Formats: sequence, structure tokens, C-alpha cells
Amino acid sequence: MKILLSGATGFIGAHLLEKLLEKNHELYAIVRDSTSTENLPRKVHTFVYRDGPGSLSEFMEKERFDGVIHLASLYLAKHEMSDIKKLIDSNIIFGTELLEAASKNKVTWFINTGTFWQHYKNKKYSPVNLYAATKEAFETVAAYYLETTKINFVTIKLSDTFGPGDTRPKIVNLLSKISKSGETLEMSPGRQLLDISFIEDITAGYLKVVELLGGKTSEKFRGKTFAMHAKKQVSLRELVATFEKVTMKKLNILWGAKEYREREVMTPWRKGETIPGWNPKTSLEEAIKRTIEA
Amino acid sequence: MKILLSGATGFIGAHLLEKLLEKNHELYAIVRDSTSTENLPRKVHTFVYRDGPGSLSEFMEKERFDGVIHLASLYLAKHEMSDIKKLIDSNIIFGTELLEAASKNKVTWFINTGTFWQHYKNKKYSPVNLYAATKEAFETVAAYYLETTKINFVTIKLSDTFGPGDTRPKIVNLLSKISKSGETLEMSPGRQLLDISFIEDITAGYLKVVELLGGKTSEKFRGKTFAMHAKKQVSLRELVATFEKVTMKKLNILWGAKEYREREVMTPWRKGETIPGWNPKTSLEEAIKRTIEA
Repeated sequence: MKILLSGATGFIGAHLLEKLLEKNHELYAIVRDSTSTENLPRKVHTFVYRDGPGSLSEFMEKERFDGVIHLASLYLAKHEMSDIKKLIDSNIIFGTELLEAASKNKVTWFINTGTFWQHYKNKKYSPVNLYAATKEAFETVAAYYLETTKINFVTIKLSDTFGPGDTRPKIVNLLSKISKSGETLEMSPGRQLLDISFIEDITAGYLKVVELLGGKTSEKFRGKTFAMHAKKQVSLRELVATFEKVTMKKLNILWGAKEYREREVMTPWRKGETIPGWNPKTSLEEAIKRTIEA
Repeated sequence: MKILLSGATGFIGAHLLEKLLEKNHELYAIVRDSTSTENLPRKVHTFVYRDGPGSLSEFMEKERFDGVIHLASLYLAKHEMSDIKKLIDSNIIFGTELLEAASKNKVTWFINTGTFWQHYKNKKYSPVNLYAATKEAFETVAAYYLETTKINFVTIKLSDTFGPGDTRPKIVNLLSKISKSGETLEMSPGRQLLDISFIEDITAGYLKVVELLGGKTSEKFRGKTFAMHAKKQVSLRELVATFEKVTMKKLNILWGAKEYREREVMTPWRKGETIPGWNPKTSLEEAIKRTIEA
């Protein structure tokens, strides 16, 4: 299939691109003017989104994609007044322009990416932060396209992810860092549960949804939301214990030196519908091992 | 009370401003750089929103408002690709910045304005057009502030409105125009029901909500959505007949010369909760009479 990917230069995007190329899909990456594309595989075509929505329409009309995978997103755990415009620009306006251009140019399917953080305390909708609220608001706008066009719009919701090549300042990277340096890390009491997935399970989930949307029964997935849950939810303390076991090295962590964050997610969302034919395969132990070895 | 009003130079805003001044509230209008403020009453202070969200924060911190009435909105019945950014800028970003600044600066209440068009075919949510989808998406974002701050956020949903001083190219103005010129107007078959309210009933509804939110039981309205329904829903043909009766002059209308619009609203939303203590008072006949005389 001919697929357009947003967020191709991000952590998940880069891994997914590799897997999609292995399946012989024809791939285009849509990137901003300011994004370096030097690490994109040579087989991937790029479209630089620079000259306004008109140029995006023309591009989509010319290229006739089968599908769009929308991974691009601005993630901010907390925000300031000046971030509001950036969050809504990235997470609502850009997605809406992509979706409009796709639905007007006969693109068959559109895979959107959401977050478990739209479901604080397991609620139908309760945003952990403004970032999560903008993700939900984009789905609110997307409902318009589901009702007025034929596009097969599906959302995949993600929780924490990690794996080789991850440069984001997230927990596994932080543990690797202090494991090497020996420095002491101040942490919350660490009883919060995490739903943390290995990148290969995540890319396998996207590939499965691409397969389903390209298949004969694709219509029955229209408007659906899927979640990729980890094999098992673990507490932050269990994650650290597993990391220490795999690396055979004790970490210097001061548990309880910090308080939990405001609206800390103590138990992640559990109500997501699983992607048919997909299951997480990698144990946490194996995932940590493979991340460190890489 | 000290109140900040957005959209004060619009049709509803201008009328509401007069009524609020009569009640001796202290009023500020927030306007864009490009908006002419020469028709604003002299007693109204203005804040020009020009120097970014930081300036808005400072302004709200300094002025300590009791409440915000958010009427500003970009309305487009249909949209092009290039309108997406404008619609989301006006209807989501600006509202979110206002709401953030209000909730961070101890503003007690915030009245948002929605539309019946969020409820195509009487559904819980089904946007007639992208405009309506952006209105719903703003409420999705506002849910974050309802959960994480104390602000008393209430939405009032409006359908069609008319009255003296209305310069919008809407139905009553159109009828006035052809009544004077004698020209022939091509119309749809005209069987669609309208929920059309006189401006004085609309401003009375806002005043009532302001009163409720300033009162002792204000907390029980937190997060609520109210609708202002007309006294009676009438078909477009009935509206024209009433207009002809009031003006004692036959209009030249070719019924059925045009088709209904895509997603024409045949029966407006009927499920809105009424504002406690408020009822529409003006009959359609009287409303037309007073509009024409003005």
C-alpha cells in the first residue's frame, strides 16, 4: 500500500517506518520545515509541510494514498500559557488539515494516535493534562469527518513505550543513565502502576491495524478505538527491580524523596479494546535486556 | 460584578453589553487588534489582545474579574481547507487561552457559547459542520479546566437569533431586503423547522445565567449546558408567512427552486435544558415587528 506517515522522525515513527518498509509498502513522510530528515531511510519519500494547507491538498490529490498513519504530536506533561497555541496547533490543527486533505482525496483509511491519559482514573474521558485534552479534542473534530466522509478513521491509544534508539527523557533512559553514572535519583514513593510497552510490540500493533484496514472486513473497524496494553502492568518499584535484575546492578534510588505529581496516574486505563489478532509478546525483562544491548 | 466580555462588537455582544450596563456591572471588552471599537459604549473598558497570551495573563491578574462571558466566535456554514486554522484559532485556541487565564487568576465563572448545530438530528453529539465540531472540541478542552481548577464553567447553546441592528446575512435580513426591493428569491422547499429567537430574549437568558452564577447556589450549575429555545419552532414557510402578515406585503419567493443543503437541519435540537427562571417572552410576530420598526 501507499502510506503517508506523520511523526516519522520520532521514536515510534522511526521504528514503524522500518517495519512498514520490510512489508514492501510505499512510504511518504510528512515533515515540518524545521525537521531534519537525514536519518530517514533512503527509500522513504518526504513531503515538507511548509506552504500552507493548499500545498498539502495538492500533494494528497497527486499522490493518492491508501492510508495515513498520524503519529506526529506535541507532548507536554505540564503546560504554560504560552504552550496552549503550540499544543493546539500540533495536536488539533495539523491533524484536522491532514484528515481533511485525506478525506477529500479518497484516502481509504486514517490511523490516529491517542493516549491512555485521556482516561484518568479509568474514566470514559478525564484528561490527565492539557496534552491529553487536545488529543480528545482532535477525536471530537474527527467525528465530523466520520459522519460526513467515507474515510475509515481509527484511533490507537498508547501508554508508555521504550526500546532501542529512544532518546526521550523517560524512565528507562533515566535508569540507564544513573546505572552508568552511579548517581543517586530522588523518586516518588514508586507505588504507581505503569503500562509500559516494548517498541516492537507497538510497531506490530500498528502493522496489524494497517493489515486490518487494508483487508476485506475493514469497514467494521470504522471509528473504533484500540489500545495497546503491556503484557502486565507493573509498579514503578517493580520496573526498577526488574531493571536491576537484568543489569545485575543495584541503583541508587531514594524512594519517597519526592511527592507524587499532581494528577499522578496511580492505575493506568484498563478498559481499552485490544487490536484483533495482536498481543504483546515481549516480557519486561526481555524488553529491558534488548534495549540495553542495543 | 466586574465582567470581561469577548465578542462585544458582534450582534449579540453589543445588545448584551447594553443590558449588562443597565444592571450596573463593570464591563471590559476583549477585542482583536483589527476590531473597531468606535461603536462600543464609552463606559466599557477595552483590552486589545495583541501581544500574546502573556499579556492576557497579566491583564487578568491585574483586573480580577468576577466572570467572563465568551461570545467571540468564527462562524462559517461551510469551510475550505484554508479555513481550518482560522476556525480552530478562533473557536478553540482563543477560548482556551481565555479560560486558562481566567482559571489561573481566580475568576469565579465563565460563560461559554455553543450552538444547536452540535446536535444534528437531535443526537448527543453530531456536528452539522466543522464550525460546530470546533465548538464541541472547545468543550472537550474545557472539561480539563473543570476537573483541575475551581472555575464555574457553563455553556449556553444558541440557535438562530435576530433583532434590531443585526447586519448578518441571515434569513430575517434577507426577507427585509427582498420586501423592499421586490426582487424574487429562490428558496429550498422550506419545510425545515427553525428555532429562531429574538435578541431581547437571548440577552435576558445571559443576564439570568450571570445572576445565577453570582448567587449563593452557583455551584450547582458548574459544568452545565443550557439551551435557549424559541417560544415555538416554525418552518421556514411559516416564518415567511408571519413576516408577510406583519409587513402586510407579499414576498416573491420561488419555493423549491433550490435543493435543501447537505446536512440541512430539518428539525432543530429539542433536548436542551432551559435556564432556570428564564423563558422566551417575545412572539415571532412581535419580534419581526420590532426588528422592522427599529
